[in-house]
Amino acid sequence: MNSLVCLIQVEAQPPGLHNNTADLDRLQQALRNTLADGRSVSIPYRAMVHVSRGFRGAGFRGWALLNNLEHGWEVVDFFNEKPLQVPAMALDLGTTHLEASLLDLQTGATLSEGDCENTQIVFGADILSRIHHATSLRRQQKPLLKDFLDPGLDELQKIIITAVNELAEMLVRRAGLEVGEIRALAVSGNTTMAHLFLGMDPYYICREPYIPLFNRAPVIFGRDIGLSTHAMAPVWIMPSVGSYFGGDLISGILASGMAESEKTRMLIDVGTNAEVVLGNSEWLIACAGAAGPALEGGVARMGMRAGPGAIEYVSIDPVSYEISYRIIGEVAPKGICGSGLIDLVAALYLARIIDIRGKYRDPGTEKDPLRAEFMKKHLVAVDDGFSFVLTGNADSGLTGQVVLEQIDLDAMIRSKAAMYAILTTLINQVGLEFVALEEITVAGAFGRHINPQSAMTLGMLPDLPLSTYRAIGNSSLRGAEKVLLDRGARLACEQILSSITYLELNVNQEFMIRFSGARFIPHTDPSLFPSVLSFREMDG
Amino acid sequence: MNSLVCLIQVEAQPPGLHNNTADLDRLQQALRNTLADGRSVSIPYRAMVHVSRGFRGAGFRGWALLNNLEHGWEVVDFFNEKPLQVPAMALDLGTTHLEASLLDLQTGATLSEGDCENTQIVFGADILSRIHHATSLRRQQKPLLKDFLDPGLDELQKIIITAVNELAEMLVRRAGLEVGEIRALAVSGNTTMAHLFLGMDPYYICREPYIPLFNRAPVIFGRDIGLSTHAMAPVWIMPSVGSYFGGDLISGILASGMAESEKTRMLIDVGTNAEVVLGNSEWLIACAGAAGPALEGGVARMGMRAGPGAIEYVSIDPVSYEISYRIIGEVAPKGICGSGLIDLVAALYLARIIDIRGKYRDPGTEKDPLRAEFMKKHLVAVDDGFSFVLTGNADSGLTGQVVLEQIDLDAMIRSKAAMYAILTTLINQVGLEFVALEEITVAGAFGRHINPQSAMTLGMLPDLPLSTYRAIGNSSLRGAEKVLLDRGARLACEQILSSITYLELNVNQEFMIRFSGARFIPHTDPSLFPSVLSFREMDG
Repeated sequence: MNSLVCLIQVEAQPPGLHNNTADLDRLQQALRNTLADGRSVSIPYRAMVHVSRGFRGAGFRGWALLNNLEHGWEVVDFFNEKPLQVPAMALDLGTTHLEASLLDLQTGATLSEGDCENTQIVFGADILSRIHHATSLRRQQKPLLKDFLDPGLDELQKIIITAVNELAEMLVRRAGLEVGEIRALAVSGNTTMAHLFLGMDPYYICREPYIPLFNRAPVIFGRDIGLSTHAMAPVWIMPSVGSYFGGDLISGILASGMAESEKTRMLIDVGTNAEVVLGNSEWLIACAGAAGPALEGGVARMGMRAGPGAIEYVSIDPVSYEISYRIIGEVAPKGICGSGLIDLVAALYLARIIDIRGKYRDPGTEKDPLRAEFMKKHLVAVDDGFSFVLTGNADSGLTGQVVLEQIDLDAMIRSKAAMYAILTTLINQVGLEFVALEEITVAGAFGRHINPQSAMTLGMLPDLPLSTYRAIGNSSLRGAEKVLLDRGARLACEQILSSITYLELNVNQEFMIRFSGARFIPHTDPSLFPSVLSFREMDG
Repeated sequence: MNSLVCLIQVEAQPPGLHNNTADLDRLQQALRNTLADGRSVSIPYRAMVHVSRGFRGAGFRGWALLNNLEHGWEVVDFFNEKPLQVPAMALDLGTTHLEASLLDLQTGATLSEGDCENTQIVFGADILSRIHHATSLRRQQKPLLKDFLDPGLDELQKIIITAVNELAEMLVRRAGLEVGEIRALAVSGNTTMAHLFLGMDPYYICREPYIPLFNRAPVIFGRDIGLSTHAMAPVWIMPSVGSYFGGDLISGILASGMAESEKTRMLIDVGTNAEVVLGNSEWLIACAGAAGPALEGGVARMGMRAGPGAIEYVSIDPVSYEISYRIIGEVAPKGICGSGLIDLVAALYLARIIDIRGKYRDPGTEKDPLRAEFMKKHLVAVDDGFSFVLTGNADSGLTGQVVLEQIDLDAMIRSKAAMYAILTTLINQVGLEFVALEEITVAGAFGRHINPQSAMTLGMLPDLPLSTYRAIGNSSLRGAEKVLLDRGARLACEQILSSITYLELNVNQEFMIRFSGARFIPHTDPSLFPSVLSFREMDG
């Protein structure tokens, strides 16, 4: 009786001359007695015909399906026999990708999973160009009339609803169900995506003082926004804290469990941005910064999202200089994803192919013969220095190979520096040190595959025992699953919203200083990374 | 802040870098502070765009319009300047007639009034034939499938919605407004009419054990059922107690004020049925019986509803035998309404034109010369006795005249006997006597014009001081107006539902005995009517 939609067994007395309660009052009374939680039980107008026929047709006993909403219970269906499943969809509404799972709310079991591109991408890869498209016409009209239409916004909403409907179709097909059988949906996305999903004006999100139209969405139903789920399926939109702190991160906090933990933890979620939360059951502090792009495949020429053809793991033997790598799927390598990139740069550092600034060293100046041979084999001289050929030899040229150029390496170093600067600024803000952390939860496509050892070698993540790190994959999706299954998680959202503080990094002087110090491998202050060998130590 | 829709002034701080609450959260917070009643303030999905534009466009200050619902407040609109009015419609959804008023919820003032026929009447004058039409197809199919359609029911719902929309048009035209400006609707009707209005199956209402589909309707909005009011206008359906005790009578109880009275009162509402409620703030007991038809114009050949052309008042001078009557409207007499009929029969009795059984006396046997002359002038011999020509002479014939036939007189006597039997059975049930009553509230078209003295003369109403009687007109409409204006009245409905007992007269032996005794004028036991002269007393 905690899930967003619940199945409740009902055994009511049939009516008689001395028991002439109306059918629906009888059902409500029986449910109130069974639920016994003092919350109201209503039957929405749109469900009255269906529920009353089901209830009478079943002889006043059977199974009622109820939406478990904050203002009370809503009866939406009635069954003669217990349905096999109560399917519900959890959705991570990402800016570039949608990822979803179909759960059975009765057992919590995952029935199927799926993902697809966010087709809004035709109007721009990033949030700002989506907002621009949504509000391109309205900017010509001020003051805004109440009944003005935003055709761009409508278009973006239609596109995303269509994509979600198609993803829902994929999920139910894989589970052998019909899309109308989906009885609930939980959506976790950033603030702009939540606005576009509901067709709400995102205009002021990206304009000082950065005010969203809403943080908490009301209860809506599948039919209200054109979803092909069951018409009475409640749609839970994960609440956001502000323009730059969306429901996806609230999901992450839920999924990490940090808001229930007495000991302090840190959550790192790298998507398009790096978003970091620090705290425990008493307090939470969060910030975000542009540490992600180099890791997400948005910047590096050969960078790509973790998926078939992506190199996700790389190592270089420090003695034999032999390269190993692992590709996702049994296909030829097409590029390198965030975790592979971190592995590769860490390995290049440990093999001394790059220096502490992240620059390729000149093979001509190398004295160690084995290393010099390796460098000659993999480094190709280009205009601005060298490029590293990962999947072949320098002789085979750059075409068709997975290559790391100096410019991409530079971007990677900036990203790792930004990440470490974010983490240190944040922990410093509350007067703690990294060793005080019980756990660092790493989320995102990045977090699913990352080797924390490589990230520590680069000075990207703090130098802590490996057991401190825990990867939880797509925490935005996991949080959406949690609110589908657990009313406690839904109530906890409000608690999280009220206990969270947001630290603005764009105007933070300390962050800029820390960023400069972190642009070396592992850091200008190597004492911060005692477990990472410096070149001097490598040389013995 | 008690009406079903309220206008609340809002003065919120404009947003800033250090005050970055989302627009709608800002509005909700400001309203919660102003309302300060601990109830939730939500903004429904369908109102989000409109409200947010209004709020921002007005510079975060202005007037919010809120639905005041049982589960909390709902913001549905926002205005720059205070609107002149908040129009709402109260509707008495009668089986034969609809009567409505348009109120301003800000001041409680009546903006306009109107009425029309219930156009469902083409499918039968009475409730049973309507139910028959609504469910004629479904009876061929058992068990009933959940997605079965009832075309007859749909048809009846469409007809009544169209009629209500037309009536709403009439009201707003008279008030110089638009129909979309109607912000709320309260509907008071019997249980079957409430079912047909919402398109709900009335099949079991008229079949033992007489179970309605619902007594308490959920919150619905104008748009849900095709009303042309504002889409977010809440529609309050007056709850009912059971199949034969509808929301119109709950309205009557509200309008009479009896449920707030410490002293015991009686409410008599004569429409198609006579419905009677006895009680006070502690308890209520109710019953209904077929005492109405002869008074409503359904039975008597010349009977008609109180309206233009109806004779509503009649007297015969006991000395000069001169007839006076009053017609509604400045038109020729077309018939006689309930109050006129009661006056006429009482006058015929006092003038000794009819005997104590309600039979026309033979003019040929009359000894008093003046009375004999009058009888000859107005009584026409017909097959089964005599007919009384009210508006002309016996010489002018029956055609085109308002005439009271013996058969109609007999029906009238049965009705008055049923009424008195109902009243005495009910008061006897609780061990009281009529003199214990603080007030007898008389409602209905009947109650608006009735002369209680005439009704007492006939032995229809108990012989009490005239000041005991109070007429309140259409109590069903008055109750609907009350719930629009007063949350206390809306909450009182639930209190009334829980404190009311229903006395079934169809199986009541005492009622049958009392009915027989009441078939004389004023009664077989004249001591019950000390103020009414018996023939013996008239003769001195």
